[in-house]
Amino acid sequence: MAGSDGIGVGMVGYSFMGAVHSQAWRSVHRFFDVPLAPRLAVLGGRDVTKTQAAATRMGWDSIETDWRALIARDDVGIVDICTPGDTHAEIAIAALAAGKHVICEKPLANTVAEAEEMTRAAAEAATRGVRSMVAFNYRRVPALALARKMIADGRLGTIRHVRAVYLQDWLSDENAPLAWRLRKEKAGSGALGDIGAHIIDATQFITGQAITGVSALTETFVKQRPLPAEAAGGLTAGAVDSSKPVEYGEVTVDDAALFLARFSGGAVATFEATRFATGRKNAMRVEVNGSAGSLSFDFESMNELWFHDETVDAAEGGFRRIVVTEPTHPYLGAWWPPGHGLGYEHTFTHEVADFLTDIGNGVDPSPSFADGAQVQRVLHAVERSAAESSSWTTIADSKGDA
Amino acid sequence: MAGSDGIGVGMVGYSFMGAVHSQAWRSVHRFFDVPLAPRLAVLGGRDVTKTQAAATRMGWDSIETDWRALIARDDVGIVDICTPGDTHAEIAIAALAAGKHVICEKPLANTVAEAEEMTRAAAEAATRGVRSMVAFNYRRVPALALARKMIADGRLGTIRHVRAVYLQDWLSDENAPLAWRLRKEKAGSGALGDIGAHIIDATQFITGQAITGVSALTETFVKQRPLPAEAAGGLTAGAVDSSKPVEYGEVTVDDAALFLARFSGGAVATFEATRFATGRKNAMRVEVNGSAGSLSFDFESMNELWFHDETVDAAEGGFRRIVVTEPTHPYLGAWWPPGHGLGYEHTFTHEVADFLTDIGNGVDPSPSFADGAQVQRVLHAVERSAAESSSWTTIADSKGDA
Amino acid sequence: MAGSDGIGVGMVGYSFMGAVHSQAWRSVHRFFDVPLAPRLAVLGGRDVTKTQAAATRMGWDSIETDWRALIARDDVGIVDICTPGDTHAEIAIAALAAGKHVICEKPLANTVAEAEEMTRAAAEAATRGVRSMVAFNYRRVPALALARKMIADGRLGTIRHVRAVYLQDWLSDENAPLAWRLRKEKAGSGALGDIGAHIIDATQFITGQAITGVSALTETFVKQRPLPAEAAGGLTAGAVDSSKPVEYGEVTVDDAALFLARFSGGAVATFEATRFATGRKNAMRVEVNGSAGSLSFDFESMNELWFHDETVDAAEGGFRRIVVTEPTHPYLGAWWPPGHGLGYEHTFTHEVADFLTDIGNGVDPSPSFADGAQVQRVLHAVERSAAESSSWTTIADSKGDA
Amino acid sequence: MAGSDGIGVGMVGYSFMGAVHSQAWRSVHRFFDVPLAPRLAVLGGRDVTKTQAAATRMGWDSIETDWRALIARDDVGIVDICTPGDTHAEIAIAALAAGKHVICEKPLANTVAEAEEMTRAAAEAATRGVRSMVAFNYRRVPALALARKMIADGRLGTIRHVRAVYLQDWLSDENAPLAWRLRKEKAGSGALGDIGAHIIDATQFITGQAITGVSALTETFVKQRPLPAEAAGGLTAGAVDSSKPVEYGEVTVDDAALFLARFSGGAVATFEATRFATGRKNAMRVEVNGSAGSLSFDFESMNELWFHDETVDAAEGGFRRIVVTEPTHPYLGAWWPPGHGLGYEHTFTHEVADFLTDIGNGVDPSPSFADGAQVQRVLHAVERSAAESSSWTTIADSKGDA
Repeated sequence: MAGSDGIGVGMVGYSFMGAVHSQAWRSVHRFFDVPLAPRLAVLGGRDVTKTQAAATRMGWDSIETDWRALIARDDVGIVDICTPGDTHAEIAIAALAAGKHVICEKPLANTVAEAEEMTRAAAEAATRGVRSMVAFNYRRVPALALARKMIADGRLGTIRHVRAVYLQDWLSDENAPLAWRLRKEKAGSGALGDIGAHIIDATQFITGQAITGVSALTETFVKQRPLPAEAAGGLTAGAVDSSKPVEYGEVTVDDAALFLARFSGGAVATFEATRFATGRKNAMRVEVNGSAGSLSFDFESMNELWFHDETVDAAEGGFRRIVVTEPTHPYLGAWWPPGHGLGYEHTFTHEVADFLTDIGNGVDPSPSFADGAQVQRVLHAVERSAAESSSWTTIADSKGDA
Repeated sequence: MAGSDGIGVGMVGYSFMGAVHSQAWRSVHRFFDVPLAPRLAVLGGRDVTKTQAAATRMGWDSIETDWRALIARDDVGIVDICTPGDTHAEIAIAALAAGKHVICEKPLANTVAEAEEMTRAAAEAATRGVRSMVAFNYRRVPALALARKMIADGRLGTIRHVRAVYLQDWLSDENAPLAWRLRKEKAGSGALGDIGAHIIDATQFITGQAITGVSALTETFVKQRPLPAEAAGGLTAGAVDSSKPVEYGEVTVDDAALFLARFSGGAVATFEATRFATGRKNAMRVEVNGSAGSLSFDFESMNELWFHDETVDAAEGGFRRIVVTEPTHPYLGAWWPPGHGLGYEHTFTHEVADFLTDIGNGVDPSPSFADGAQVQRVLHAVERSAAESSSWTTIADSKGDA
Repeated sequence: MAGSDGIGVGMVGYSFMGAVHSQAWRSVHRFFDVPLAPRLAVLGGRDVTKTQAAATRMGWDSIETDWRALIARDDVGIVDICTPGDTHAEIAIAALAAGKHVICEKPLANTVAEAEEMTRAAAEAATRGVRSMVAFNYRRVPALALARKMIADGRLGTIRHVRAVYLQDWLSDENAPLAWRLRKEKAGSGALGDIGAHIIDATQFITGQAITGVSALTETFVKQRPLPAEAAGGLTAGAVDSSKPVEYGEVTVDDAALFLARFSGGAVATFEATRFATGRKNAMRVEVNGSAGSLSFDFESMNELWFHDETVDAAEGGFRRIVVTEPTHPYLGAWWPPGHGLGYEHTFTHEVADFLTDIGNGVDPSPSFADGAQVQRVLHAVERSAAESSSWTTIADSKGDA
Repeated sequence: MAGSDGIGVGMVGYSFMGAVHSQAWRSVHRFFDVPLAPRLAVLGGRDVTKTQAAATRMGWDSIETDWRALIARDDVGIVDICTPGDTHAEIAIAALAAGKHVICEKPLANTVAEAEEMTRAAAEAATRGVRSMVAFNYRRVPALALARKMIADGRLGTIRHVRAVYLQDWLSDENAPLAWRLRKEKAGSGALGDIGAHIIDATQFITGQAITGVSALTETFVKQRPLPAEAAGGLTAGAVDSSKPVEYGEVTVDDAALFLARFSGGAVATFEATRFATGRKNAMRVEVNGSAGSLSFDFESMNELWFHDETVDAAEGGFRRIVVTEPTHPYLGAWWPPGHGLGYEHTFTHEVADFLTDIGNGVDPSPSFADGAQVQRVLHAVERSAAESSSWTTIADSKGDA
């Protein structure tokens, strides 16, 4: 499935995630010493015209309009899943069964049951040397990778507090149309699964601890929205047709999700995900307070990590702005001199660099499907707590939780 | 009780709050056109030597060692209560009965029952022209007064999100002694009542809305602490005596309190109060997101208010740093030219300026004891929810809630 | 001249500087253990009505309309000069001759010749135990006092760069009236002497080095401005009388002054003072880069000092925000718990605390009149260089430079 | 020289600039609708082994070890010059003569004479439809492109102040070796030409004005540095060989350059470029103050532009942080949703996008060689003023200045 000098990639989906994954596949071996150089073999999509246009623009060698055909191709060694969450389980399980390494966008699935079925399939595939990864790209923000390292090195001591928000504002306008991300059957949930999943994974990643219980509330501020013009016949969100009377549809997901949590190591936490925080564009923020120090991060300033070292004399102490562009920082050795920052897309380049390296080395990548399923269980617990008067809801380690 | 040109103040308590209140009473009429100039008539404290020393240093004309004697004096028109919360109710109710205006430190009391009894006494006294105020000084931070004005003026539209934290770190050291603020019988609660009360009051103040329900958890990270040397015989916290084997006592209050909340106008909220956020010294932070804009504040930069105006074209929009030192900003006309910032103490000067003005004008000051009791009901609901698996707990408007 | 428990102060001038000095005199002994408590004995001003009103408001016991009478009074031990620069020399020299300690607002004088005459008078007075100080209050910003200490302790190594700006914007409006600060005969110079003097003194103070040469340019953007209504007959700036045709007068000082400089220890520097930096209210900013670290400060966030420690491993290094409110920070032990910041006025309280302490201890205060004269020589060199094609102009240590 | 669907690029040089240019050439047509897709035809370098390794890694189809051969190839339509400044003139002039479009790294040349010769060659080539551009990539930082647009739209009114610094710290260590950038014969100048050139071009670009005169000083803090191991026989900087006695060589360029300036529209300015600002990694900072508003930028936070709108009521005014990631911002429509920032490399992608578009449209790109020559004249004036006691030195518009 891979040539002597590379490995073929088949990617399903070509919108936002597809575009950024394509750039990662095109660029990774130009900067990282990966054991396998990726070839952009085939792009999958249902509409032949649109798929071909995307393939041409993004540099894919060929297209398939049926994902099953894409999986079946001999020149595909890696399947990259960039579709909405309702299709993840079926594609991923089939690809793993066909012996293809799989990288799957987050959240892993729309339900705990699907996520756990995927996890079982991934575990079985691993026994055959077939690798899988869920694409929580924020783990590959250098500042967050550095945060994990510093915590693992004991620089924060005992972790007592985690506070994380993911604030966007693109739904604040009540007349924004009813896109697929606002429909439960496609997206699984709203802000919770779309962006809340990122801060759940990221905080567990950097602390090295699991969330053990939550108390939650969710809210849908705008309960009906204009139907996009194409919505009647198609599945893609589009502009509202202003020449006709506006038709409205129900928003069936949360606009915002807020929860309290406890971590396995004793920390207490607050979480919030929303698309209604006017003025906040992509404020994925995490702060961790430990007995020996604290860390703070905001994705809107993604090249910075703020660190307070409690062991420094108080007269000289304070949060310091580490510009995470030194060659000794995670992933930075591959790029530019200090102070020449990276952007959003590079988190994906780092992700596929690690994925290709793990495939080449024959080890299981991280985050695994099991990690993705654990996030799914937290999402599920949040929804259940919100439905049950915010009462405390524990997250089981076992599959029995579903 | 007041001379032709002023009014006598009797203040009970002379440590941190006493010192800052004294500076406010000394300074207020030098900058504000108050109808009554305060005279620092008498300082109350139990220990005659310490009280006299404090009075001399702080500029009080005389002392009393029994607060009842202080209240009884003819030269006292205002009673200022700066003692721990367990004594507020008794002193305030007696002072109001004696016809003295009362300003009382926060939280108003240690229980809802006490707070409501005080509220009844204040309402009755008001019918006699006797005024009362609970000293939530953060309402008089110019930036927060400006925030309230901007929200009342509709600059934020419909409020959807409130997030507030009050982060300190002075208990992060596990060997810090068991001060009175860590004992439930003196302090009522821990971080919750001490600093959580401030963000409860401040967010209700600036939004003009009430918290209607909460889901909470509390945590005591360090459950035993060294007893201070004087603790056996006295009530004041002091240094641990290192010449003897360390004795430990139980911490009977929360170290941290976290809760979700809903506001009467439909907003959802997260709150957190802690003394374990290493590196955060006095980070009383509030952010409010509305349909037309957002506001953000951090007391560590108290002269700044950040405002995002959603009605500005997106290409030019963004959070702007309003340096709240213009003469048109609340309270600022009394002070210095733009850019010459104020400090913590000035919030108290503003507080007594408003209090004296309201007394002179014969109107009831704000925040009232009723406002203080409402905060007390929220604190109580937080504790109850935390004790009952974080389940949703509503805050009753009526007195029946206690 | 001083009672057993205090010392009488006679202050000349009662507008902006007078108001803030008054608050310092009233407050200093409430917080600092000064050997002499100040009494606000007498306020000097030419207009009896206005002076009496100011005295009443600010708490001065009496007034004098002739500064010579003020100096002559037995109950005056300290003379505090808060008038425009053209009167400093005469008052200060007379007061010193009369055996009064003198604190004089900056800049010390309007010319080098006057400043040096004052310096000689101060030196002579010091032999009689009479003390003097020029009131560069920014030295008493705790963050800048900490900066000086850190540099003196070697935390920055060899200083290579200084960059300082003082940015205000209150003259940006072309229709702002021709106040006395815009007339050379009263103010000596414009932005240069008013705010440029502060950054000259502050950078010399924190580095412990002297400016040895400059290359400069100055600019007057708005060359004519409306005359204020009172300007014809009086000396005070006031509003423009809109009922009459607007009369214009010449602006005879600089609106902005920019210069390059070298310090005695080898550092190179840029300086800029302007009242036309729209949006900057009081941005007195200093950054110093040394071989072992860097410091950065902005008065608009006066409770913060930013420090980069070059000796920290680069992977963890970065500018840290020291919140300068710890009890171990300069002056902070007298005030509030960490995180409860100070304001502009407290720099004056610190200033008179140090002044009173030095008088009590019989030592010469700092900054001395000699320090003030050195600043004056730098100001003069800036003006000369600007007049001579920006050519390099050295600052002589000797008096011969004038 | 270009195929029906593309155009061949021949690039000379393959270190830092070569790597980032390569990524731009590979990526540009994946995101921008350029009329000509670039093909990475040939990479030029003197060492065949190193050049081939770089070509393989960076995706170039072939190599040449003689730049003359590279220029002569039929499959090369664009010549991209990424070598040190001493070779620019010869390569560029030859390439233009051969009818190849030329993009040349900055500074355009090491002397004014060379720059002007290149400008004449470019003007002549333009008459034959051959295009040229000097690669001041900071013009394509979206925030700076937005700044230019806002100023051109009149949002700042009359420009009064420009202040610009470019602060790095990689030479702060006195034992850093004597790299080619520290030798005048290779680099032309030190911090001045390397990074000072960027802020000269950027400020002229965003204001739309030219620098008309300067007063300058330069400094070389560390006058001798260890010779790198390869320096004896070769031209490339390398590590110091620690097994031998250290040999030292002279640093023949400036470590820091500081200057005052005036702009053609009346603004006054300060500039500073240094590699000794410890803790500052790539702080290319610009602030512009105008009568109607101000702008501020720091490349270390490259996705942000700070804007103060003086026309807003002062009570609500302040510098606002525009997160420059909206689809309506320059270049951003090609990339990701709001809040998903770009990095350093994207400035080069934008640069070649504009270059290809201009070639396709038959118009002259900007910045032109004439723009590059104007920057060179400013650099020259800075050096001359620094050599002549900082005296004011005007920048001639005509070629006669050299």
